[in-house]
Amino acid sequence: MAPILADSTKPNVPERENYVNSGFVNINNPHLDMLTEDILYHFDLGTKTHDLPSMFGDVKFVCVGGSPNRMRSFALFIHKELGLDGDANNITDICAGTDRYSMYKVGPVLSISHGMGIPSISIMLHELIKLLHHAKCRNVIIIRIGTSGGIGIEPGTVVITDVSVDSFFRPQFDQVILDKVVVRNTQLHQELAEELLQCSQEISSFPTLIGHTMCTYDFYEGQGRLDGALCSFSKEEKFEYLRKAYDAGVRNIEMESSVFAAMCHLCGLKAAVVCVTLLNRLEGDQISSGHNVLVEFQRRPQQLIAKFIKKKLGTSS
Amino acid sequence: MAPILADSTKPNVPERENYVNSGFVNINNPHLDMLTEDILYHFDLGTKTHDLPSMFGDVKFVCVGGSPNRMRSFALFIHKELGLDGDANNITDICAGTDRYSMYKVGPVLSISHGMGIPSISIMLHELIKLLHHAKCRNVIIIRIGTSGGIGIEPGTVVITDVSVDSFFRPQFDQVILDKVVVRNTQLHQELAEELLQCSQEISSFPTLIGHTMCTYDFYEGQGRLDGALCSFSKEEKFEYLRKAYDAGVRNIEMESSVFAAMCHLCGLKAAVVCVTLLNRLEGDQISSGHNVLVEFQRRPQQLIAKFIKKKLGTSS
Repeated sequence: MAPILADSTKPNVPERENYVNSGFVNINNPHLDMLTEDILYHFDLGTKTHDLPSMFGDVKFVCVGGSPNRMRSFALFIHKELGLDGDANNITDICAGTDRYSMYKVGPVLSISHGMGIPSISIMLHELIKLLHHAKCRNVIIIRIGTSGGIGIEPGTVVITDVSVDSFFRPQFDQVILDKVVVRNTQLHQELAEELLQCSQEISSFPTLIGHTMCTYDFYEGQGRLDGALCSFSKEEKFEYLRKAYDAGVRNIEMESSVFAAMCHLCGLKAAVVCVTLLNRLEGDQISSGHNVLVEFQRRPQQLIAKFIKKKLGTSS
Repeated sequence: MAPILADSTKPNVPERENYVNSGFVNINNPHLDMLTEDILYHFDLGTKTHDLPSMFGDVKFVCVGGSPNRMRSFALFIHKELGLDGDANNITDICAGTDRYSMYKVGPVLSISHGMGIPSISIMLHELIKLLHHAKCRNVIIIRIGTSGGIGIEPGTVVITDVSVDSFFRPQFDQVILDKVVVRNTQLHQELAEELLQCSQEISSFPTLIGHTMCTYDFYEGQGRLDGALCSFSKEEKFEYLRKAYDAGVRNIEMESSVFAAMCHLCGLKAAVVCVTLLNRLEGDQISSGHNVLVEFQRRPQQLIAKFIKKKLGTSS
């Protein structure tokens, strides 16, 4: 089942080399217009039950992350940073009707959880992209803020991804479509990454760099951890693999960036991945830093994105 | 990157053809004994911070499912069904310190959520299997109770999986380990599946069958849905693919069974997958049944497992 390039097999597979410029989200599905109602099942939202344009039409920034609690904290933090009216604690989960994802809206910022792993974020992205389309949003910037394992860098370093690579260090995402494998581009938006790096230099309270991010299908065997329920390799084989990853330009490892990059690229969304590293995998496998240290680390991507959003909105002090 | 059989490449990869008989959970990781402390990070539990044998030593049944709310309801339901003392509403989430997973213990039954997709359930299983090992649990039966899309069967039908197959209808799970792909067995425990079918016949209030379950990496393109943000195939190609799946013995599609079967098999856990079908994919893609119908459907695997557990404990009426 060797991966095949979509364009070479299916001219109607809309793999594209560049972001579209219309500003609208680019839905690549001719069947969607034939639906009389679109139920976004995992959000508990729908085109007949909800007025999506009035609920979401003004969204300009979408921030996504794995943990529901973290994305709620981010919404509260952004509310404060943007100096919005009203009590932030009254912010309610728009997806309260389901426990698959949590979603909070704070002015032009949407904060959504996506769970752990490529399949979980992929379901969320399909429904989010349709939501932005139905709501007629324009010029949306989407940023994944997450946690990751670092390779050869100080724990707490924030990595802005230039390209997401797979377990074999290839800059691609293999999407199974029916019984075919389609290879997709996993480049993130270069200018956006540089703008974010610039913001981090203005904050200058934690180390930030641009590098490759490796996206794996599991946390233990797939990331070369020695502490899972199953482990069939030696410490030496682990370190050889991580060193190879470092030499290939990989600075952190997480579990969602490849499909995030691929889907945002295809749908014309300016996308970035900004993850803090919780440990240096060349020094260990277990996340053993104290609770307070980890909490402070997890705030770093949020501080960076808040700075960026305020700058974009012209409210930066 | 053609998949390779583990045994043919790495004699130390513990792929096994049969369940072990010791009764203990079989940890296949020589490095684990060298840890002075094992932090089960995504459960917010650890061997130094928690007395795992006294907390979990008596666990005989582990039930896992995607949704935290559903697994809490299952815990409450089992508490009632087993006629246990105390107010079920006082049952607390053992993983309250994290929002990655939820875990409830009711007598000998552990009820845990695993989120959506192979990577999410894989992290949970690594930490659960280590937990059962540290707690010295014996003769544990583990059952995934979930929801799925049916193929050619009435919505609401409960499918007990005999084997999990991939998108190409192969009875295998491809596990990436460092930069190699290891092919793993995805057979579920045959006698257990038959015992469960027997139980369902004693309930006889909903249709149940044993069949193959297809496990995919996403909900939309990977399952041939026409209603995602991206769709590059025709209605005819979709139906041709689903018909091929039906002809290959596939009766439902979900997103966790393959790694669940593979890891439980390797660790000597008697495992079953019992999923209700929410729709018939030969009739549509959107889950449009009413809320109450879906709630009743989702109770069916729970009723079946409650019946099975009571039978095993000799408390069946």
